[in-house]
Amino acid sequence: MRYELYYQPSIQGRGEFVRLALEEGGADYVDVARDPKFGRPGIMKFLEDPSLEHPPFAPPFLRAGKLLISQTANILQFLAPRLALVPKSEAGRLWAHQLQLTIADWLYETGQTHHPIANVLYYEEQKDEAEKRAAHFISNRIPKFLGYFERILKLNPRGGDFVFGKKAAYVDLSLFQMIEGLRYAFPRTMAALEPQYPRLISLHDRVMTRPRIAAYLSSSRRLPFNEQGIFRHYPELED
Amino acid sequence: MRYELYYQPSIQGRGEFVRLALEEGGADYVDVARDPKFGRPGIMKFLEDPSLEHPPFAPPFLRAGKLLISQTANILQFLAPRLALVPKSEAGRLWAHQLQLTIADWLYETGQTHHPIANVLYYEEQKDEAEKRAAHFISNRIPKFLGYFERILKLNPRGGDFVFGKKAAYVDLSLFQMIEGLRYAFPRTMAALEPQYPRLISLHDRVMTRPRIAAYLSSSRRLPFNEQGIFRHYPELED
Repeated sequence: MRYELYYQPSIQGRGEFVRLALEEGGADYVDVARDPKFGRPGIMKFLEDPSLEHPPFAPPFLRAGKLLISQTANILQFLAPRLALVPKSEAGRLWAHQLQLTIADWLYETGQTHHPIANVLYYEEQKDEAEKRAAHFISNRIPKFLGYFERILKLNPRGGDFVFGKKAAYVDLSLFQMIEGLRYAFPRTMAALEPQYPRLISLHDRVMTRPRIAAYLSSSRRLPFNEQGIFRHYPELED
Repeated sequence: MRYELYYQPSIQGRGEFVRLALEEGGADYVDVARDPKFGRPGIMKFLEDPSLEHPPFAPPFLRAGKLLISQTANILQFLAPRLALVPKSEAGRLWAHQLQLTIADWLYETGQTHHPIANVLYYEEQKDEAEKRAAHFISNRIPKFLGYFERILKLNPRGGDFVFGKKAAYVDLSLFQMIEGLRYAFPRTMAALEPQYPRLISLHDRVMTRPRIAAYLSSSRRLPFNEQGIFRHYPELED
């Protein structure tokens, strides 16, 4: 099946968590808004189509045959068994999804550091509040989330290479992306913290060198981080 | 099976979305932290147990036999087919979960109105920022979410009584709870907005009068809203 991913064409954002799974799974997919044959009108048409029975609230969304699926973690939960990126057992899938939802919370909080008042305002209009929020995120929340995932890897009875042991799952790809994004947004913070979370950093490095991920990261399909996405580098937020 | 719900005993919070599903589904369950035989040490023991293979990041979490499941939407996704609160088809389950995750986003944003800087600070320490954030939430976000769910009910080819037509699903219970909570937190706003969303208000009323929900709401098991939960009534945030 050819999957169609609908997401903003100029940022990694939430869509990147889906792109990483599609790439690692070797899926046949089109990144619609980045494909010259489709383009952004294709996304707006979907969101505004008044006859759509299952309209997404926001991108990303995925078309898979007749299904139209949105919410990043829901898309990943749907794709993962089809791309061999999650164990088959119900217990395994619930655990992966639980972790993915915790990553979603972490990602949401990351975006709030530069938009603590409203997404419709510019960063410059909420910079004072952003500095306050980012200070708490850096000192309390980043260590709490890193510590949680490090603990999970440490306790893993199947070994701590990945969340499920020796085989990578979609949640590992998402953890890689969180580390990458936080390094971009808060480089000094991450440089100082990382030595305390060796298993998580090792997981990140293992994901990055997997052949399909490495090929993707060095391709033009991987967009650079920038100050329109969720992970933004504003040096003043780290001071 | 007897389910064990672990959540804070003094607030509705996220746990309430699970309680409503357990009640409507007629489940045999214990609300552990509110049961004199268990109590709050039971929750902390779980969160801090160093040998726990699948530790929750935060409450609520549910014990179901050998499974320990956290993240509200994940718990609901697990319970719903067992309590006949979701259609059996994969498409139906994906759609319900997608909507539940959108409700989770809405709930998170609701809590941010009184804690826009950090959850570890008191409301009074971030009141100025809360007033700014709440103003945007009231004028932009509440109408956007209400309009989205109203549109879904309107487009429903199976009729708009509930999200899936004539039969109530867990997502309907959660929509009821959102309306209840927003009425508590922002009464003037909701009074002004509700006439524009008649299907959603009608759904709320249908849920409220279902026999098991009505019995629950009038019992001591239903906690009152208060200013320690996610939905808080601070009149100044509505001015």
